[in-house]
Amino acid sequence: MDTKNVEILIEALPYIKKFRNKTFVIKYGGSIFKNELAKKAFIDDVALLSLSGINIIIVHGGGPNISEMLTKLDKKTRFINGLRVTDKETMDIVEMVLSGKINKEITTELCNHGINALGISGRDSKLITAKKKLLNSKEDLGYVGEVVSINNKFLLDLVNKNYIPVISPIGADDKGNAYNINADYVASFISSKLKTEKLIYISDVKGIYKDINDDSSFINRVNKKEIKELINKGFINGGMIPKMECSLMALDNGTKDVHLIDGRKEHSLLIEIFTNDGIGTMIEGGF
Amino acid sequence: MDTKNVEILIEALPYIKKFRNKTFVIKYGGSIFKNELAKKAFIDDVALLSLSGINIIIVHGGGPNISEMLTKLDKKTRFINGLRVTDKETMDIVEMVLSGKINKEITTELCNHGINALGISGRDSKLITAKKKLLNSKEDLGYVGEVVSINNKFLLDLVNKNYIPVISPIGADDKGNAYNINADYVASFISSKLKTEKLIYISDVKGIYKDINDDSSFINRVNKKEIKELINKGFINGGMIPKMECSLMALDNGTKDVHLIDGRKEHSLLIEIFTNDGIGTMIEGGF
Amino acid sequence: MDTKNVEILIEALPYIKKFRNKTFVIKYGGSIFKNELAKKAFIDDVALLSLSGINIIIVHGGGPNISEMLTKLDKKTRFINGLRVTDKETMDIVEMVLSGKINKEITTELCNHGINALGISGRDSKLITAKKKLLNSKEDLGYVGEVVSINNKFLLDLVNKNYIPVISPIGADDKGNAYNINADYVASFISSKLKTEKLIYISDVKGIYKDINDDSSFINRVNKKEIKELINKGFINGGMIPKMECSLMALDNGTKDVHLIDGRKEHSLLIEIFTNDGIGTMIEGGF
Amino acid sequence: MDTKNVEILIEALPYIKKFRNKTFVIKYGGSIFKNELAKKAFIDDVALLSLSGINIIIVHGGGPNISEMLTKLDKKTRFINGLRVTDKETMDIVEMVLSGKINKEITTELCNHGINALGISGRDSKLITAKKKLLNSKEDLGYVGEVVSINNKFLLDLVNKNYIPVISPIGADDKGNAYNINADYVASFISSKLKTEKLIYISDVKGIYKDINDDSSFINRVNKKEIKELINKGFINGGMIPKMECSLMALDNGTKDVHLIDGRKEHSLLIEIFTNDGIGTMIEGGF
Amino acid sequence: MDTKNVEILIEALPYIKKFRNKTFVIKYGGSIFKNELAKKAFIDDVALLSLSGINIIIVHGGGPNISEMLTKLDKKTRFINGLRVTDKETMDIVEMVLSGKINKEITTELCNHGINALGISGRDSKLITAKKKLLNSKEDLGYVGEVVSINNKFLLDLVNKNYIPVISPIGADDKGNAYNINADYVASFISSKLKTEKLIYISDVKGIYKDINDDSSFINRVNKKEIKELINKGFINGGMIPKMECSLMALDNGTKDVHLIDGRKEHSLLIEIFTNDGIGTMIEGGF
Amino acid sequence: MDTKNVEILIEALPYIKKFRNKTFVIKYGGSIFKNELAKKAFIDDVALLSLSGINIIIVHGGGPNISEMLTKLDKKTRFINGLRVTDKETMDIVEMVLSGKINKEITTELCNHGINALGISGRDSKLITAKKKLLNSKEDLGYVGEVVSINNKFLLDLVNKNYIPVISPIGADDKGNAYNINADYVASFISSKLKTEKLIYISDVKGIYKDINDDSSFINRVNKKEIKELINKGFINGGMIPKMECSLMALDNGTKDVHLIDGRKEHSLLIEIFTNDGIGTMIEGGF
Repeated sequence: MDTKNVEILIEALPYIKKFRNKTFVIKYGGSIFKNELAKKAFIDDVALLSLSGINIIIVHGGGPNISEMLTKLDKKTRFINGLRVTDKETMDIVEMVLSGKINKEITTELCNHGINALGISGRDSKLITAKKKLLNSKEDLGYVGEVVSINNKFLLDLVNKNYIPVISPIGADDKGNAYNINADYVASFISSKLKTEKLIYISDVKGIYKDINDDSSFINRVNKKEIKELINKGFINGGMIPKMECSLMALDNGTKDVHLIDGRKEHSLLIEIFTNDGIGTMIEGGF
Repeated sequence: MDTKNVEILIEALPYIKKFRNKTFVIKYGGSIFKNELAKKAFIDDVALLSLSGINIIIVHGGGPNISEMLTKLDKKTRFINGLRVTDKETMDIVEMVLSGKINKEITTELCNHGINALGISGRDSKLITAKKKLLNSKEDLGYVGEVVSINNKFLLDLVNKNYIPVISPIGADDKGNAYNINADYVASFISSKLKTEKLIYISDVKGIYKDINDDSSFINRVNKKEIKELINKGFINGGMIPKMECSLMALDNGTKDVHLIDGRKEHSLLIEIFTNDGIGTMIEGGF
Repeated sequence: MDTKNVEILIEALPYIKKFRNKTFVIKYGGSIFKNELAKKAFIDDVALLSLSGINIIIVHGGGPNISEMLTKLDKKTRFINGLRVTDKETMDIVEMVLSGKINKEITTELCNHGINALGISGRDSKLITAKKKLLNSKEDLGYVGEVVSINNKFLLDLVNKNYIPVISPIGADDKGNAYNINADYVASFISSKLKTEKLIYISDVKGIYKDINDDSSFINRVNKKEIKELINKGFINGGMIPKMECSLMALDNGTKDVHLIDGRKEHSLLIEIFTNDGIGTMIEGGF
Repeated sequence: MDTKNVEILIEALPYIKKFRNKTFVIKYGGSIFKNELAKKAFIDDVALLSLSGINIIIVHGGGPNISEMLTKLDKKTRFINGLRVTDKETMDIVEMVLSGKINKEITTELCNHGINALGISGRDSKLITAKKKLLNSKEDLGYVGEVVSINNKFLLDLVNKNYIPVISPIGADDKGNAYNINADYVASFISSKLKTEKLIYISDVKGIYKDINDDSSFINRVNKKEIKELINKGFINGGMIPKMECSLMALDNGTKDVHLIDGRKEHSLLIEIFTNDGIGTMIEGGF
Repeated sequence: MDTKNVEILIEALPYIKKFRNKTFVIKYGGSIFKNELAKKAFIDDVALLSLSGINIIIVHGGGPNISEMLTKLDKKTRFINGLRVTDKETMDIVEMVLSGKINKEITTELCNHGINALGISGRDSKLITAKKKLLNSKEDLGYVGEVVSINNKFLLDLVNKNYIPVISPIGADDKGNAYNINADYVASFISSKLKTEKLIYISDVKGIYKDINDDSSFINRVNKKEIKELINKGFINGGMIPKMECSLMALDNGTKDVHLIDGRKEHSLLIEIFTNDGIGTMIEGGF
Repeated sequence: MDTKNVEILIEALPYIKKFRNKTFVIKYGGSIFKNELAKKAFIDDVALLSLSGINIIIVHGGGPNISEMLTKLDKKTRFINGLRVTDKETMDIVEMVLSGKINKEITTELCNHGINALGISGRDSKLITAKKKLLNSKEDLGYVGEVVSINNKFLLDLVNKNYIPVISPIGADDKGNAYNINADYVASFISSKLKTEKLIYISDVKGIYKDINDDSSFINRVNKKEIKELINKGFINGGMIPKMECSLMALDNGTKDVHLIDGRKEHSLLIEIFTNDGIGTMIEGGF
């Protein structure tokens, strides 16, 4: 590290000052777990943000790993509207993979950086109270759930003691039934409840485009109203729609900004946070 | 509840006073998970102890569930000296079953009693630093580990905020490799580190006998010296030997008493703690 | 204690959870001090409630003991509307008996259960600021007083440090004159000021009857509106009227429920709190 | 108050600085309660010391008032070696007079000065654990006790919350029996346990003289060794001997200085503390 | 100190009780630094108030010392409307004299009394954010500033740790430019922000007169409305006008009373605070 | 900031982890104040270290500015052994320049970075108790002082509330006389008293050379024993000798490492701390 490099450190100062003691909820998508270099860079980025005094809460997904395990167990699953029909046996496997494998891997890697990460599921200390998700079509999704409420005292107890909660997106109802919940929604609910500075979705897409086939139409910064127009005009569609719903819900409930970042690019998280232009799409909460 | 019943409550008073603000480490054995009535009674007992002001830390096993899952996955395993040879793939399954299934089940049932239970593994916040277990025979056990150290600040942070830690017996080394560790040893290490009031082993045996074939030889209360004599004379043998080693280690390191309780009998935990004679075997630490 | 007995303990769990960290103000009537068995059971009950995490504040009376001492001293007293005309010399004796004898007896018995009880009078740290009670008839009651205000910071200082205040119902005005105050009113004022979970009157009556001569007309549970009707219709009368006024005042000021319990029956306090039906009369605050 | 008067305030500054945050135990003797002017001045002095940041703990006696009450009740008492033989009925009266009358009077007068005084007896929260005092002569003193131990956590809880404990010299044994204890000894025990800055005896004597018949032989300042010589030579004798034993015990156990002050002289307490020469006798702890 | 003197101490009791734990902002004027006896008496007074439990914040001026230093440095200065035109070089000298000389002298003298005084300027921890003062006449005053905001968290951090802040009246804008600010205004702003019990101006005038030429017209106590009338009628004029504006601003913003005291008279501060009539003029906030 | 730049940030991670919550005492020499670029870089570096969780205490010098001011005031000064003979008038000027000018400049620039800097002198809250420095030659240095003791409670109060103390090297004796003290010694005393992680001297020399005329003989890392040898052999001499004495004193008293850094090179502080080789000379405390 020489003078020039130190100046790069110094460039980060205004961002560190700005976000110090603020809270970020980061959804880390399951599709990028296989990219070892990107994962390592992500862990580095979280460690640096945490040591800079930013409170981090991580929510992870895990779809591909679940499918892989179900295949190994010769367990067939059906999808309705992109949601996995989850019988009791499948739910057990979902929970094992999410809470017992992916959750502990992320936690351990953070711990190896000297970060006090703590892997929990939404069932611990009733973090996520859930209920069965019902479809208008009356089709039964089994143990697929929706968030009813968040135990934010529990999260604050951890965050205030400088632990980073790493959360697997599973909730339980009052009878103790476990439910598989979409991780994007879980992250949005938590960010809404805590009214965080940022909700950050890290997945395998670069962000939002006006025209998905035209790279030059990439949108760097956008506000709530514009997002709604893009949806109405059909520019945003498909799998991006539910993610936008999660984003808007969080912004409506007091989250300051939402970011969509490509997790496949190394250090995309830090670049997004520590530069003015960023690298992904930032949806401003506006006031 | 009438006058007579209330007098039974009152009988518990001296025990509540005695153990208030003390800490119990409870090892809950995997072999008794299938007994639903006994499990429900155990959860009740833990809730009552916790609400009586006793700090509880639970360590659980899970051998039978692991074997079941390995069978489903057509994964063969070999045993050396009763220890499961654990390759990387097996370790993943062990962790999923322990941290992702059993751990969350116990945690959820406690939470349903209004108890703030928190399911963690020894990998969270570096709770258990482990190393590979080496055999004199040079045979390779794979990812079977031994405890190197315990992060007791982490446990105290949780206990002082009135959370009950439910711990799956997995540790990690500095490189982040996960190891499967004998739960009896984990409980003993934690109890040693925190110098707890009691270390309680709940399993499917009634306790210690002078003559295992003679029910009337059951030992209600015994001290360290006598345990050593019983081992030397061969009265204690087989699978009970390692459990006795764990017990003696805990007592030597400041645990006040160790209890062996039959988890198949409903409410055996409360009966042991809240009566003078108890129901299992109590090994006194002596001074 | 065997399995069946332990199940009785477990039955108390939901009540312990419900009232944990809540505050009960208990008025313990002077008429039941002579019943040694009942008194011992009462002390046991308070100890168990306290160890279950409920904050207890006790206000005691002492009429019979005061009369006894006045007789010994050949001091005659007159009553107007059931209130003892209290000259300065009588007041000294009242205070000695209440604060110096009864108060210390209750406190000592609680302390002998390992409870940190603290006997105080309303004069300590200006707990009860009082004024002379004036009658419409212009007759002079001497040092009979009414509550003007309660120093609740003082009570909270004690309660938060886990001391049980045992309060003798004496107040002082700004000049330091002591006044004898009805203990039922003192309990009601304190419960009003702290907006407690329960105000409990323990005396030598079973509770409220629709027809005092018909045992089967006993009322187990009643609300404020019904109490007012019972008074208007004349079903509640005599000495019960002022107690009902105290109860209604407490409920109007934020106390959740008021209980009337027969202190002569052993463990009636625990039975009332730890069962659904109770044993006395519960007046619901309603909302 | 004019400039000259303010200069008198300023003269107190060095003493305030010196004793700020230190603790004084003051024994206030029963013989001076009747002197209203002196009592009022004493209360003023305590208020000023307390508001100057000095922690005050008061222990009071009450012999004359007890005798008066016993006379009223036609209760005869016998003395052995100056100690009142105390049967159960006498003990009840002793406690009523001490804890129920004198204690509350002192407390109330302090409270009227805006001081948070709190009148307690040694039975509250097991402040004074006592045992029966046995005589070599085997004569039975009844409920006359000796201090076994002091609950200093309780005192510190009060002092740290800025309450002034006013203590009546009664203790209880494990069975709850109350004992009458010499107040000088109680004050000395408390001062020993807390290792206070000063133990101050306020009574109806001026202090120590070399020759009790020669006013000019008054001793202003003396050390432990000199006291022992004065006793050995017979210059100190009679009722002063036990007070000297109490003083020496306190000094031996860490009390810094002991003062003997004439409580009949108005403001003698402040004059003793806030001037170099003082007005009574100061026994230096020396080091 | 004898009985009579102690009674003078006792006379201070009601005032100590009244102002305990309250906050006084004291502006100490530069014109009285030369009077050594008065300064010493002032320091004594502040020490006594502080040890009596009153929180003190001192703001000092320093005009004469600044002029003296400028003369030594042959630096000419011009005044517009009584405000010193302050170029950059002058500002450096102003700051050196205020923060580096006067500030440290007052601080050191307080420290020598065992008081934890802490000399700061308005630039420390952004205590005073300032902006350039603009004149309607468009004349340029240079680095003469006005208060924009006060960092009261910083003041409270110091006061709550029992430090006495001694503040030199200099502020800085966001670019770090230092400004010389009228100390009367600074004191008024701080008192307004903290809504203090008293704002006390100590200068070389006795207070307010109806007729400045008639000593007998001195006003001891006055309210806001009367002050406004006195100004309107021209009885208050000249240099007293801005001081009255500061006083009224503080009273309008929650300061309880403002006092004007003659600092040349020894102990005038204590006399004003510790007597009913005082010695200066008290402007009541009224409600 | 792009991926490559972010990787530079990440390189700083191990250093941030290592020094987090540790304390550095930094002596910032007066000779480098004129270099605006270097000063700005220094402020940036301190801000980054502070935001990384390192506690910073700054001690500054100011020789050149003092000389400049003395010249302006036509005040001649004499030097004995390199120490400025300081009469009362000179001392006033020294204090004004140090505490009133340099101190406030550094403080303000840190505050403009959002850092809570607090400019104090050693006279505030008796931070530095000093005494007159006596020469063997009996020549009188006037108000040149030596450190007698440090009030470390005061420093910890500030550091624990996240304020950065910026200290001007002036102390006072018990009579309030101010003394000018060598800033290198002040920094060493403070570092000794707090047993800090690092004591860092930033001046206008690059560090230590074996042969001051041979650039290639620059010493990057050295231990205490080697320093002593270098002094004994005469390789270290002149003005470097007292700095080495300060360094050795700090290391002997528990400071972990001492660094000598060239303040003229921009960002030399960060480069020294955040790289393995550093840029100046590190003297290891060794154990």
